[in-house]
Amino acid sequence: MKKAVIIVAAGSGSRMGGELPKQYLELMGKPLIMHTLERFTRFDPEMKLVVVLAPAHKKLWEQMAGSYELARGVTLANGGATRYDSVKNGLTHIDEGIITGIHDAARPLISQDTLSRSYAAAVREGSGIPVIEMDESIRMLNQQGGSVHMDRSRLKRVQTPQVFRSDRIKQAYQQAYDPAFTDDASVYESVYGPVTLVEGNRENIKITTPIDMKLASLLIDSVE
Amino acid sequence: MKKAVIIVAAGSGSRMGGELPKQYLELMGKPLIMHTLERFTRFDPEMKLVVVLAPAHKKLWEQMAGSYELARGVTLANGGATRYDSVKNGLTHIDEGIITGIHDAARPLISQDTLSRSYAAAVREGSGIPVIEMDESIRMLNQQGGSVHMDRSRLKRVQTPQVFRSDRIKQAYQQAYDPAFTDDASVYESVYGPVTLVEGNRENIKITTPIDMKLASLLIDSVE
Repeated sequence: MKKAVIIVAAGSGSRMGGELPKQYLELMGKPLIMHTLERFTRFDPEMKLVVVLAPAHKKLWEQMAGSYELARGVTLANGGATRYDSVKNGLTHIDEGIITGIHDAARPLISQDTLSRSYAAAVREGSGIPVIEMDESIRMLNQQGGSVHMDRSRLKRVQTPQVFRSDRIKQAYQQAYDPAFTDDASVYESVYGPVTLVEGNRENIKITTPIDMKLASLLIDSVE
Repeated sequence: MKKAVIIVAAGSGSRMGGELPKQYLELMGKPLIMHTLERFTRFDPEMKLVVVLAPAHKKLWEQMAGSYELARGVTLANGGATRYDSVKNGLTHIDEGIITGIHDAARPLISQDTLSRSYAAAVREGSGIPVIEMDESIRMLNQQGGSVHMDRSRLKRVQTPQVFRSDRIKQAYQQAYDPAFTDDASVYESVYGPVTLVEGNRENIKITTPIDMKLASLLIDSVE
């Protein structure tokens, strides 16, 4: 089946400090977002690439695209006021009948195996959401100002790409925004019921702070 | 009030590969466990230090102690078959009326502020447990083989040291082991009710894999 990915790169990345949005920061001599895009074209060279950009970053994108042929083949969409609006804008560039991932630009360490598992689950069952184990003990705050210990073997950390059949995820994004929609899986689930979880890869961190950027530079060459 | 810490260093550290248990691996030219001990004596030079060791590692400890005076002033306790047994052995070396932290040897990046908050809460309220925010979306597996999205603003990742009034934590560890005891806070809580949560520090990771070791070497000098 045909595949696509919507790379959400509309955030300002304010926690990195500095002027340049994090997706344009260099990681081993190449903008972070180019690493991310390359993971997807390596998985499927025919994959349609949609990048959702903040309008204010369009100049930055064009400068970068001057140096990277892959960037020139990308379909651009406008970022909205919220992540929900941004994804919705991205989905207008996706036809029905396509398996579509929605991925954070700031996750360049996605492995080929994780991509394979996520897209395959979406073909088979409508959705594929990569998750990993929780390493630490977890507590949940309760209404009384206290907290209760949680069974961490039942808790999973959710990564991206969250992958869906395009007809379904486009339909799900026709709903009015609800604060319970904290990721694409929760939007899908509100219409189509339980999503399918697959194994992610531990290195697939979301780069948020300068420390994450250092960690990513240590890891980037070791992730297949 | 008098303070103590029990450093639990009885694990085999099998995920690091290699022969040497991780607590003896060098981080910036010094064994990991020495960094951890130094954080506590810097916080309070009078603090009593108890280290719980696997009996098989005693030789390693003695070799190391030849080079580090601080290690020679430590009280050693024998590791047990489980973490629960190890902590219980460590507690036999702690008198009543002392504020006692229980800390993973593999967390050398604990900040002075986190120590201060954790010990102060235990003086004031009986327990002080450092926690940090959750960065990622979380799902909880349910009985039906599906999963539900969790409100991550209510979930906290638990760090160490978990700090307690010694009379209480010694008493709590008189119970028979229960599989629900996944950390010291849960042992305490089963007798004395809700623990007090304080803010931890994000760098305070538990070193488990070679990647964590690299990350720790990047961070060690920046944590006060």
